[in-house]
Amino acid sequence: MDSVSNLLESIEGVGRDTVRGGYSRPVFSPAELDLRSWFEQEARRRGLDIETDRNGILWAWWDVDGADRNDGGTRDGALVTGSHLDSVPGGGAFDGPLGVAAALAAVDLLKERGVQPQRALAVTVFPEEEGSRFGVACLGSRLLTGAIDPDTARNLKDPDGVTFAEAARANGLDPAHLGRDDEALRRIGDFVELHVEQGRGLIDLDSAIAVGTSIIGHGRWKLTISGQGNHAGTTLMEDRADPMVAAAQVILAIRKTAAATPEARATVGRLQPIPGGTNVIASRVELWIDIRHPDDATTASLVESIHGQAQKAAAFEGCTAALTRESVSGTVTFDGELQRQLQLAIPGAPGLPTGAGHDAGILAAHAPSAMLYVRNPTGISHSPEEHVENDDADYGAVALADALERLL
Amino acid sequence: MDSVSNLLESIEGVGRDTVRGGYSRPVFSPAELDLRSWFEQEARRRGLDIETDRNGILWAWWDVDGADRNDGGTRDGALVTGSHLDSVPGGGAFDGPLGVAAALAAVDLLKERGVQPQRALAVTVFPEEEGSRFGVACLGSRLLTGAIDPDTARNLKDPDGVTFAEAARANGLDPAHLGRDDEALRRIGDFVELHVEQGRGLIDLDSAIAVGTSIIGHGRWKLTISGQGNHAGTTLMEDRADPMVAAAQVILAIRKTAAATPEARATVGRLQPIPGGTNVIASRVELWIDIRHPDDATTASLVESIHGQAQKAAAFEGCTAALTRESVSGTVTFDGELQRQLQLAIPGAPGLPTGAGHDAGILAAHAPSAMLYVRNPTGISHSPEEHVENDDADYGAVALADALERLL
Repeated sequence: MDSVSNLLESIEGVGRDTVRGGYSRPVFSPAELDLRSWFEQEARRRGLDIETDRNGILWAWWDVDGADRNDGGTRDGALVTGSHLDSVPGGGAFDGPLGVAAALAAVDLLKERGVQPQRALAVTVFPEEEGSRFGVACLGSRLLTGAIDPDTARNLKDPDGVTFAEAARANGLDPAHLGRDDEALRRIGDFVELHVEQGRGLIDLDSAIAVGTSIIGHGRWKLTISGQGNHAGTTLMEDRADPMVAAAQVILAIRKTAAATPEARATVGRLQPIPGGTNVIASRVELWIDIRHPDDATTASLVESIHGQAQKAAAFEGCTAALTRESVSGTVTFDGELQRQLQLAIPGAPGLPTGAGHDAGILAAHAPSAMLYVRNPTGISHSPEEHVENDDADYGAVALADALERLL
Repeated sequence: MDSVSNLLESIEGVGRDTVRGGYSRPVFSPAELDLRSWFEQEARRRGLDIETDRNGILWAWWDVDGADRNDGGTRDGALVTGSHLDSVPGGGAFDGPLGVAAALAAVDLLKERGVQPQRALAVTVFPEEEGSRFGVACLGSRLLTGAIDPDTARNLKDPDGVTFAEAARANGLDPAHLGRDDEALRRIGDFVELHVEQGRGLIDLDSAIAVGTSIIGHGRWKLTISGQGNHAGTTLMEDRADPMVAAAQVILAIRKTAAATPEARATVGRLQPIPGGTNVIASRVELWIDIRHPDDATTASLVESIHGQAQKAAAFEGCTAALTRESVSGTVTFDGELQRQLQLAIPGAPGLPTGAGHDAGILAAHAPSAMLYVRNPTGISHSPEEHVENDDADYGAVALADALERLL
């Protein structure tokens, strides 16, 4: 098989971010399109049959020997594995590509072993998993499963004001055909996603690989605080309605509220003052809040509490605050039988819950889904410092191949 | 004379900002270049002779009748008036253009009155007064007077990474010739700048126009807070070194410190989390602090106090903080004799200090300089809501003409 590190090496120059460090590969950017071409080329080299579905998901098919391509049903109930190629701004090299490269390497290994699939196998690439361009994470799998209304998706805008419909059209998709795709869903018999671990779970467990047990519930909310834009030099401190001051109060309230709630995580990583001049009191601050908790009711009460504190902080500063929900996913427990099969295929692999969202979490509502995590020796992710040792990456591909072989 | 409102109406479509509202006319942008062309055309219509000096300042000359153009000295000691055409992001229609339009209208009026200048008169347009593109306010007048080192200026970068040297070259200037221009300085006998008031001083005084007495000291500092970028879902609250949380503490410390210091103003209007993803704990936050106080020693101690509090807030969060000075201008008291002449020319005009910086404040170190302020009925500036009534604008042009006539 091709080693996973060789596969990743061949794309290490694509989408580097010289300002932030690491990679910026937003969906449908030149970098992400390059990665899609690379994937298609690698899939073709392995004799896989490439399809792009109407939501922009790539499928590379290894059909059952002798299957009649004219019989649309021969791919139904397939074993599907894959991940994504888009990144957060300034992200690492492994988040997404590791799962795609490991899937390609696993296909090599299965072929070397002479495995004859009893059902079709597909390697998939999902678009906009990170939501870093259009704001909704797992947009491809949400569209496929109908978890997002296609109209809502079409109207999502990137920071330059380009709608998802426009970006989709520019990339050969028909915006009118975005949305739930029952034909594609029927093809997913089981879904297994391999991914770099994004925390310190495997370090603490002293293991190179784990079987995912659950994804804790998470969502994104946008808070808009409106005040009175004015001149920074002529406006007395007591005459101000400065949304930046209110935003600072909100950021601290979020930290305090999350820290006081066991297992909660809440983050403000994106914030935009408008107009954003040094000598200008902002008229408006937009900030995005990422909130996660294993218990969905607790997530809801965290949101409610933060919303209330934001209203109070804004009012105290003579500002107003409006909260809108961008996306919410409840806690997902992966399929028990599929977890058991993975653990039988990879003896000794511990079970591990995660705080990170994945397409597998969206697909879990429609087909038995599960995940494998590969050790991250720093625990750092969504950062240029994210890392996976070569040996662990290859061990991940072998484990994935073992699991796929058992499931085929 | 052309009414000031007619002149401003002819540029009201230039550089509109559809996202922020108002105008975004950064130096050397298509919008600002359009405004420069408009100015040159209006100056030529009035028979003025246009020059662009080596720092990109526009001069429109009304020479003394019969002056020998070959004698370089006939423009020395001229009476100079003018302002700027660049804007803050999402700024108003009057900040800058009002002074330029009033100067053109005043020339009309002086010609209608049959005034024969006893010394040359120039109308000037200064580039990058706001510092909204390259970070240093009054960059044109700072270069002219040597208040900024030309090397420092050449290396200033805009948000896209374009240096001021590159932008200057692209606009016909020789970057090697940027810097103190003694020939141009000799030509400024007296400088008078008319400007929209950017606070509520004239509302409180119930007057349409005031004579500037002083500009309070002001400066800009950039604070960089570095922490540990990481995944927003997998990183426990207690494991974080989140520079956004430290930045929020700093913003509140700035507000509290300034509010507790009489006459101080301190503002964070620009802030950039890096990388800036919703599901990413920032690795770094850059924010800019605008600090002003009439007493320069108090400004210095405010900066020191804020710096200390920033270090402490950063350390508490496991982050580090570094403060760099971008520009500082001490408090400027305008020339007493020139103030007296303006008050004699405009009977009843009150004296008024300002918290806003202006090119007149930079030029004051080299030539007698003064300012006229025109009433702003909302007191709001650096905002689309900035406003001047037509009658007040025209009254300003008449007052400026009266002052110039007295000084010529």
